[in-house]
Amino acid sequence: MSERTFASDNFAPAHPKVMEAIVACNSGHAMAYGGDDLTKKAQQAFSKLFGRDVGCHFVFNGTAANLTALMAFQKSYGSVLCSDAAHIANDESTAPERFLGMRLSPIATEHGKISPEGLRAALGGAHGVHHPVPVALSLTQPTELGTVYTLDELKTLTAIAHEHGLGVHMDGARLGCAVATLGCTVKEMVADTGIDILSFGGTKQGMMCGEAVIVLKPGLAEEFPYWQKHAMQLASKMRFIAAQFIALLEDDLWLDNARRANAAAAALKKAVEPLPFVKIAHPVEANALFVSLPPALIEPLQNETFFWPWDLSKGMVRWMCAFDSDVEDVERFVATLKRLAESVR
Amino acid sequence: MSERTFASDNFAPAHPKVMEAIVACNSGHAMAYGGDDLTKKAQQAFSKLFGRDVGCHFVFNGTAANLTALMAFQKSYGSVLCSDAAHIANDESTAPERFLGMRLSPIATEHGKISPEGLRAALGGAHGVHHPVPVALSLTQPTELGTVYTLDELKTLTAIAHEHGLGVHMDGARLGCAVATLGCTVKEMVADTGIDILSFGGTKQGMMCGEAVIVLKPGLAEEFPYWQKHAMQLASKMRFIAAQFIALLEDDLWLDNARRANAAAAALKKAVEPLPFVKIAHPVEANALFVSLPPALIEPLQNETFFWPWDLSKGMVRWMCAFDSDVEDVERFVATLKRLAESVR
Amino acid sequence: MSERTFASDNFAPAHPKVMEAIVACNSGHAMAYGGDDLTKKAQQAFSKLFGRDVGCHFVFNGTAANLTALMAFQKSYGSVLCSDAAHIANDESTAPERFLGMRLSPIATEHGKISPEGLRAALGGAHGVHHPVPVALSLTQPTELGTVYTLDELKTLTAIAHEHGLGVHMDGARLGCAVATLGCTVKEMVADTGIDILSFGGTKQGMMCGEAVIVLKPGLAEEFPYWQKHAMQLASKMRFIAAQFIALLEDDLWLDNARRANAAAAALKKAVEPLPFVKIAHPVEANALFVSLPPALIEPLQNETFFWPWDLSKGMVRWMCAFDSDVEDVERFVATLKRLAESVR
Amino acid sequence: MSERTFASDNFAPAHPKVMEAIVACNSGHAMAYGGDDLTKKAQQAFSKLFGRDVGCHFVFNGTAANLTALMAFQKSYGSVLCSDAAHIANDESTAPERFLGMRLSPIATEHGKISPEGLRAALGGAHGVHHPVPVALSLTQPTELGTVYTLDELKTLTAIAHEHGLGVHMDGARLGCAVATLGCTVKEMVADTGIDILSFGGTKQGMMCGEAVIVLKPGLAEEFPYWQKHAMQLASKMRFIAAQFIALLEDDLWLDNARRANAAAAALKKAVEPLPFVKIAHPVEANALFVSLPPALIEPLQNETFFWPWDLSKGMVRWMCAFDSDVEDVERFVATLKRLAESVR
Repeated sequence: MSERTFASDNFAPAHPKVMEAIVACNSGHAMAYGGDDLTKKAQQAFSKLFGRDVGCHFVFNGTAANLTALMAFQKSYGSVLCSDAAHIANDESTAPERFLGMRLSPIATEHGKISPEGLRAALGGAHGVHHPVPVALSLTQPTELGTVYTLDELKTLTAIAHEHGLGVHMDGARLGCAVATLGCTVKEMVADTGIDILSFGGTKQGMMCGEAVIVLKPGLAEEFPYWQKHAMQLASKMRFIAAQFIALLEDDLWLDNARRANAAAAALKKAVEPLPFVKIAHPVEANALFVSLPPALIEPLQNETFFWPWDLSKGMVRWMCAFDSDVEDVERFVATLKRLAESVR
Repeated sequence: MSERTFASDNFAPAHPKVMEAIVACNSGHAMAYGGDDLTKKAQQAFSKLFGRDVGCHFVFNGTAANLTALMAFQKSYGSVLCSDAAHIANDESTAPERFLGMRLSPIATEHGKISPEGLRAALGGAHGVHHPVPVALSLTQPTELGTVYTLDELKTLTAIAHEHGLGVHMDGARLGCAVATLGCTVKEMVADTGIDILSFGGTKQGMMCGEAVIVLKPGLAEEFPYWQKHAMQLASKMRFIAAQFIALLEDDLWLDNARRANAAAAALKKAVEPLPFVKIAHPVEANALFVSLPPALIEPLQNETFFWPWDLSKGMVRWMCAFDSDVEDVERFVATLKRLAESVR
Repeated sequence: MSERTFASDNFAPAHPKVMEAIVACNSGHAMAYGGDDLTKKAQQAFSKLFGRDVGCHFVFNGTAANLTALMAFQKSYGSVLCSDAAHIANDESTAPERFLGMRLSPIATEHGKISPEGLRAALGGAHGVHHPVPVALSLTQPTELGTVYTLDELKTLTAIAHEHGLGVHMDGARLGCAVATLGCTVKEMVADTGIDILSFGGTKQGMMCGEAVIVLKPGLAEEFPYWQKHAMQLASKMRFIAAQFIALLEDDLWLDNARRANAAAAALKKAVEPLPFVKIAHPVEANALFVSLPPALIEPLQNETFFWPWDLSKGMVRWMCAFDSDVEDVERFVATLKRLAESVR
Repeated sequence: MSERTFASDNFAPAHPKVMEAIVACNSGHAMAYGGDDLTKKAQQAFSKLFGRDVGCHFVFNGTAANLTALMAFQKSYGSVLCSDAAHIANDESTAPERFLGMRLSPIATEHGKISPEGLRAALGGAHGVHHPVPVALSLTQPTELGTVYTLDELKTLTAIAHEHGLGVHMDGARLGCAVATLGCTVKEMVADTGIDILSFGGTKQGMMCGEAVIVLKPGLAEEFPYWQKHAMQLASKMRFIAAQFIALLEDDLWLDNARRANAAAAALKKAVEPLPFVKIAHPVEANALFVSLPPALIEPLQNETFFWPWDLSKGMVRWMCAFDSDVEDVERFVATLKRLAESVR
């Protein structure tokens, strides 16, 4: 497969500028395990992005970013509240239970966004020694269903969580897509809304491999390097992850990438919305569409241009745009969709 | 730091051919999580290397390769026998205990190589319900102290282990250095000696990032993809690890790399052996030297050309050669050593 | 507190015959850790109860019985299906996650009983490497809400589970209450319905301390003694648990105890059902009542005779009968209830 | 087996006064999980014993006492220093690794007692992110080899540990035997020497079942009830453990028990020391003897009066006295020993 699809943003390659940065740093020896100059420079780039010193650590993948970040709030008898659509609850196997030793407590949501009422209800139960005690709230922004929390919604949720002594983690595997949608700065969306620790996506935002954990609450995760090591997430040739992040942050490449992905999703939505056989399941606020299709249409369409089913009992599938999705990809995909819809009718 | 040092083989960059392969695969979309064509091709390359179908899985780093491989023998009440110099026992934080839930039982060694007597003694203790039950033997080849097991030694140890119902894992982070020293094939050294599962090093053998777990015993690790996922070791853009391994195996690049590293170590040994103030602590059989130096010499030398101390109570340090260590590096290093030795006298 | 209450069957003392057995075995030395004669005799009593050789192991409490039993099906990437009212899901803190390393997947139920549709839906999801894989079904009989599965219901559920490769565990903390209700034998209810492994309650059925794990599927849990030890559940002076079980099984004392508890619950139900301010929430099929009361009544009633709230948002409380609950206890309790209901009106 | 042996102090029954206390509390209902009056009374008895308020929690067995106590110092990347004869290192299966997720680092000892030099050496290694970081020192008093630390030795070790930021745990499964030997108070031996948290033995000191964790450092283990629950160590009918401890502490019954056990060991030592075929391996300072016997003598002697082998490669066995070991037991045992020694000669 080499044609661009709408299967996932992790089907995409690395952005050319990211690749250039990798090639450029491939000479000479460098201190291993993050003791090198590029790692320092990448960490400084993140502090610049957030307008003040932040903690910054690089791990290999998104599951690892989420779970090492949540170590900041880990208690052996604790639980993590998250949405019922959360990646940590649905797509990370038993890694949360095994690595954190804690329970996940998913909260029912309509479009992937936790409501204040849902959060309060989850906090209201009995929490004596017989029950896991909530220690953290994990929010995904944009959500796994392609929706975006507003700044006010984030502030309300973090305030409730902090009132109850919980820490707040944000899973930002596609963070730029939300920043682009809200038209704010990442500082406004993450730091000013009360997020304590952030998974800042690398791979889905245009890198080859690597994610960042950004510690916003001062002093929160000083033991992070130890967690990272025993989580099997310490890269020896760290410079290669660092170089990618430097390129990603330079001139807001990550945001440009996100804008392109969002624009493709908007174009795709605009094109399929009028089609009578397509039903859009969730508001399209970032780079993903969730649509219901006639069951007979799904497999033929997948065979021509691969994408993932989401809930086949409802005929629901997911179309995800990447930084390299362009207008022609959308036009070609929609043309295929229409053609096949004719034939399966 | 960009000058080549003798600090570690993970201070080195990626081999240029490896980097070329990475760049070459950076276009178009590819199935994520190893469903792509390059991953299949890399897996076939490993089967070709071992002369028959082997299981082949790619993870991010060496700790992960060792511990996911050892899952093949995991029992909740089990223990893993290893040498007292083993990386899993000394350099992987508490990852073994946390990920495997098992105990490590290090066996005392002289030069990092487990002896048949040492192994038998470790197996001879009481193993009722009150005691961890040995389930696996982990051998490092070459050892962490730069020595190499002979084929006969390996066969003897695996035979004892198998007799007692233990599985055998080989940590081959620098596997090629041992193959080069023994002048045999990797099949002869690994498959024919009775190793059940192998960590095949990528990063230290010339890659940017990535290790392979090779399953030699048929049917041994069919659940590996599940372990890999919950170990937070499943790369989404897997093609980039696969491409590196294809380049590494092509025309035995990994062995060429190993030969160059071994040759540098031999040259370094030859140059320092006659020096009265240098004492070589372990036989130099691969790409590493462990030497005792006058204490006053260590820090000045590190300041000019970094390397890691090993056991400062004995004035012992480690000099490690990489695939890119060359004759001039050795000459320059030895010259510096001699010059500083004069000045600290 | 020494008056008998309806708080819980674990507020009750040990049955006098159980205590006699404890006292009777308190002389001389006996092999520790279950190597003694009484332990063998107790194990034989269980084999007699089930009409054939069964595995039989004694642990300290109910959480431990459930979790060591579930080790029989443990996979590191697995999940356990259970009802949303299950003790393992609601009352065992994070012990399941920490000890098993697995996820609990609660299935929504109306009265604590899993339906075949609910079970099928839970089994129908995606179970690739990204998702926990269901490995066991845990059924509580009687349920935590005081309802009882019929033999046919049990057979249907175990058949579905076995079809999908899952093992089936029964949490029988109050097993006798279900046997008494169904009027069958324990063999018919547990062994003949396809249960693979059973937590057989001791404490709530009339003992001071101790639970049994009964292995019904031959060969299923041969490593149990190792799990028991590393679960910190191996008693040294085991004879004292064994003696209690011998007394409990002798002349069906455990069933007599259960019948008395059930009878008290039936009497309590009969007495409160006509009261207009009492609403019974779940069918009363064993020894427990769940009722909604006027909120203002709950605290005054608790102050006179303690019981646990269940869901105060619905004014729901739990009344639980024990083996020593008698007619007078019921009459006294109902009189108090009526008197207080007058006064809070 | 009902004859008194020298196999272990856990072959003994419960002390009659302990049994009386159990029987006495077996009437009426009592709040479960430690909310009852007896539990409070037992906790007060421990505060009285130590001359000030101490934290006090009851668990089921010794492994659980040790490991829940060590949770007070738990860090996910930490290690626990202990002697190479320690129960936690040798007799608790993989429970330490699984429950704490930490490594055990045994220190070599001569007679089971850690030396200041040994402790300092263990603390002196590299402790960066690659290595487990020592977080606690666990001392057994008396040691598993029947020796006793002096007050000064304890103070020296706790001072070194505290200097390095480690907490100090004492495994006092047979605590009274050490107190009796030193002729001091338990407060002097435990609280005044700087122990932070203590496993206070119940079972081996004369109870049927139950151990206490005593928190000496104020504020140290406020989350203990949560650890206890998720460790599967929360008894529902807690009054029965509490009642035993009340009886054990009353009029220093536990110390009387210890003195009798020590006296029996001293008598046994006196009787066997002159025998030419018996070699005493460790100083006899508490209730245990470790002796080397002619190999041919061991099995015949075990067949007449059971005891555990210790290290058969050295012909070493263990003879352990209990609270109920008396002069006649010693005489009968020595007579048997002499008779058999004649016959195997």
